[in-house]
Amino acid sequence: MPETLVTSLQVKIVQLLRKDSSDELTRLIDSLNSREIVHLMGHLSLEHKMKLLSLLSPEDAAEVMEEIPEVQAVDLIEEMEADQAAAILSEMESDEQADLLMELDDEDQQAILARMDPEEAEEARLLISYEYDEAGGLMRTEYFAYPENFTVKQVTDDLRANNEEYSYYLLKYFFVTTPEGKLTGVLQMQDLLFARPSTKLSTIAIPNVFAVDHHATLEELINFFDAHDLFGVPVTDDEQHLIGVVLRRDILEAETERVTQEHLETQGIIGGDELRTMPVSLRARRRLSWLSVNILLNIVAASVIAYHQDVLSSVIALAVFLPIISDMSGCSGNQAVAVSMRELSLGVVNPSEVLRVWWQEISVGLINGVVLGILIGVAAWLWKGNIYLGLVAGGALTINTLVAVSIGGTVPLILKGFDIDPALASGPILTTITDMFGFFLALTFASLMMAHLGGL
Amino acid sequence: MPETLVTSLQVKIVQLLRKDSSDELTRLIDSLNSREIVHLMGHLSLEHKMKLLSLLSPEDAAEVMEEIPEVQAVDLIEEMEADQAAAILSEMESDEQADLLMELDDEDQQAILARMDPEEAEEARLLISYEYDEAGGLMRTEYFAYPENFTVKQVTDDLRANNEEYSYYLLKYFFVTTPEGKLTGVLQMQDLLFARPSTKLSTIAIPNVFAVDHHATLEELINFFDAHDLFGVPVTDDEQHLIGVVLRRDILEAETERVTQEHLETQGIIGGDELRTMPVSLRARRRLSWLSVNILLNIVAASVIAYHQDVLSSVIALAVFLPIISDMSGCSGNQAVAVSMRELSLGVVNPSEVLRVWWQEISVGLINGVVLGILIGVAAWLWKGNIYLGLVAGGALTINTLVAVSIGGTVPLILKGFDIDPALASGPILTTITDMFGFFLALTFASLMMAHLGGL
Repeated sequence: MPETLVTSLQVKIVQLLRKDSSDELTRLIDSLNSREIVHLMGHLSLEHKMKLLSLLSPEDAAEVMEEIPEVQAVDLIEEMEADQAAAILSEMESDEQADLLMELDDEDQQAILARMDPEEAEEARLLISYEYDEAGGLMRTEYFAYPENFTVKQVTDDLRANNEEYSYYLLKYFFVTTPEGKLTGVLQMQDLLFARPSTKLSTIAIPNVFAVDHHATLEELINFFDAHDLFGVPVTDDEQHLIGVVLRRDILEAETERVTQEHLETQGIIGGDELRTMPVSLRARRRLSWLSVNILLNIVAASVIAYHQDVLSSVIALAVFLPIISDMSGCSGNQAVAVSMRELSLGVVNPSEVLRVWWQEISVGLINGVVLGILIGVAAWLWKGNIYLGLVAGGALTINTLVAVSIGGTVPLILKGFDIDPALASGPILTTITDMFGFFLALTFASLMMAHLGGL
Repeated sequence: MPETLVTSLQVKIVQLLRKDSSDELTRLIDSLNSREIVHLMGHLSLEHKMKLLSLLSPEDAAEVMEEIPEVQAVDLIEEMEADQAAAILSEMESDEQADLLMELDDEDQQAILARMDPEEAEEARLLISYEYDEAGGLMRTEYFAYPENFTVKQVTDDLRANNEEYSYYLLKYFFVTTPEGKLTGVLQMQDLLFARPSTKLSTIAIPNVFAVDHHATLEELINFFDAHDLFGVPVTDDEQHLIGVVLRRDILEAETERVTQEHLETQGIIGGDELRTMPVSLRARRRLSWLSVNILLNIVAASVIAYHQDVLSSVIALAVFLPIISDMSGCSGNQAVAVSMRELSLGVVNPSEVLRVWWQEISVGLINGVVLGILIGVAAWLWKGNIYLGLVAGGALTINTLVAVSIGGTVPLILKGFDIDPALASGPILTTITDMFGFFLALTFASLMMAHLGGL
């Protein structure tokens, strides 16, 4: 969508907002696709966003809220009166509703829940009582469940009577329970199609239905859907009562979210997603928390240079190569970190296999270290016409590449073994150690060959 | 899973392989979950893997192949006789089958297709004639389609007759076509449930069914499923013939794959996924292709130091701060790159909005630059007791942080605007420019204050 279109769209929306033209706004919003809505909402002022949401029906407002990034939706909910927030949240699917409610402070949360339909509020309270990344927090409460003493006709009558409401139910399995709500079996739509109307569900339901515990982790759910080709799975509590369903799509989305999160963390965006519409102070503070740790580690690493200042003052040409050795070792090490993170998430490697991974990195590191060392060594030699400078720079880079891939390959496994987030900590640990080692190697080699290097 | 378990499992598998004990192996493999299979296959020798697959039934072998990473599965297929490969591939779902066939060289591909059931081979040829990231390459050929002149009874009879085969069909929509195969409508299972057996499909089918063009891109498909709450969508060719279905789950998986790919690229793993079981020469070559570009860029950046060598030889203490300025500017710039990549993928920002993004980065960069500059400046001051050294180091880092966030924030948008992969190119461009700038700033500031710095 070219910039001009957005601008003219924005202008039009603002005009309609001034006219309080609810109908025209609704028609305009309905005509936009989800990307256009996201983009528009990212460009309106808070005041205009709030006015737009108040002029749309709760149903349309809910659709807009479901499209935009979650952090933005939470900000808007916090700005609203509890009545309006409750009306909009009530139009959302149970899992998206719970995602937003979880992010609110207690007071706002309670005020909104108090204004929702009591039955719906109770379901929402159940969902938000769980962690966002366990089955209870990932589940939905829209699902079909019938007591086992129901007949097929009773079910089809119910389906016909509530056809419209049920069209929002994504999972088309029919769960069968005891009168107390314990999960005992499952039916598919075609089973109803093939059965006689008077048949009792208990006689045709498939027993031993798969179910996951309400505290199952995201990891366990990913594995479950890897192993079982199902659209969804019922969730049961400690007494085997059916309390919700987890859909494959929600798990896939949560997985993408997690991969994205990991990526942001390795690049130093921590404390959650950052959008540039967030307050500058929050963005600066979050980024600084990462940068300030890094600068301290950098000072520690650079102290190695300070300690060998006498060598450097005799061979000033070496100062050119120290940042190159630092940067290139970081690059090689980060490649090894990326492969280890990938292998951990694919499950092809365990934290206990540090030695095997180390060995596999050494072989690649040796080849790459030698090639890079020769490149930088020849460059140094040609520059100053002194082969010893080439040996110092090239030798240091070759050995430090081995150090970097060893650390980069193994640190994520070690951190994972200690249950520390490898995405967050691997990078800083890697660069600090490889910098120290690289500086130490270059300066030590130079002091050993000082007789051949003086005055460069 | 602790290492010892894998080891004893491996030992057991190897024993059973020696005994050619097909039944026991099948039972053992069936008892493993997908993560255990992935891990086991990653640890067996090629010879043992091939023997295991030949002892399992094609169906069980297909399940193993579907679990392991795609690159591994392709390697195994390439090792097999065409007959065995065809038997195993025939047991896979159409989309996974096509994914593997696409990766083979032409000769292997044709040999395997020639040995498959002709009808299935034709479907496979259709799928692999598309790019892997367009609708035709992402679709499956397992779907329900009936001519519009069929009655409900003809459909339910067909469903009953083929119940077992159809249980593998994931999408439970019934597409209705003209006798020539043009898509005209859709039915859901409950529509069959509520209709009289003699009803013609044409009278109850919902017309104007959503469909996507066979050349629709992954991006367009993601947007489609964002906007429409469907499990899948039919794919039509240029003449509106129904040729397949794309499922939401496959699009979600392709999206996770893409996010992962982007992450690997930013970390310097290019040319596709790397697993440590791949040949060392391939792994080293791929990583080197990235490293060798980086080392050349590094040499260019470091030439700025070489050019100002006289300044450095007068103020040798500065050599300690050059790597810190280089590294910290890289950190700040990478944070900005990560946020821009994220905003691009969320759709909240367009390539044309470079100026707005730049402005939003400047504000954060100013705060963080000043804080980091003060930190490093005070450290320099305390170390040498010379406030001018602090001013040089701190001033250079403050200004260079602004440069880094400006480049980091805008370069991904600019590259995207020129249709160049921002994940691949943003990092090297960022570090080269910020290194050059940072070195230039520090050395120029030092030469300006030389009178106060001499001999440090």
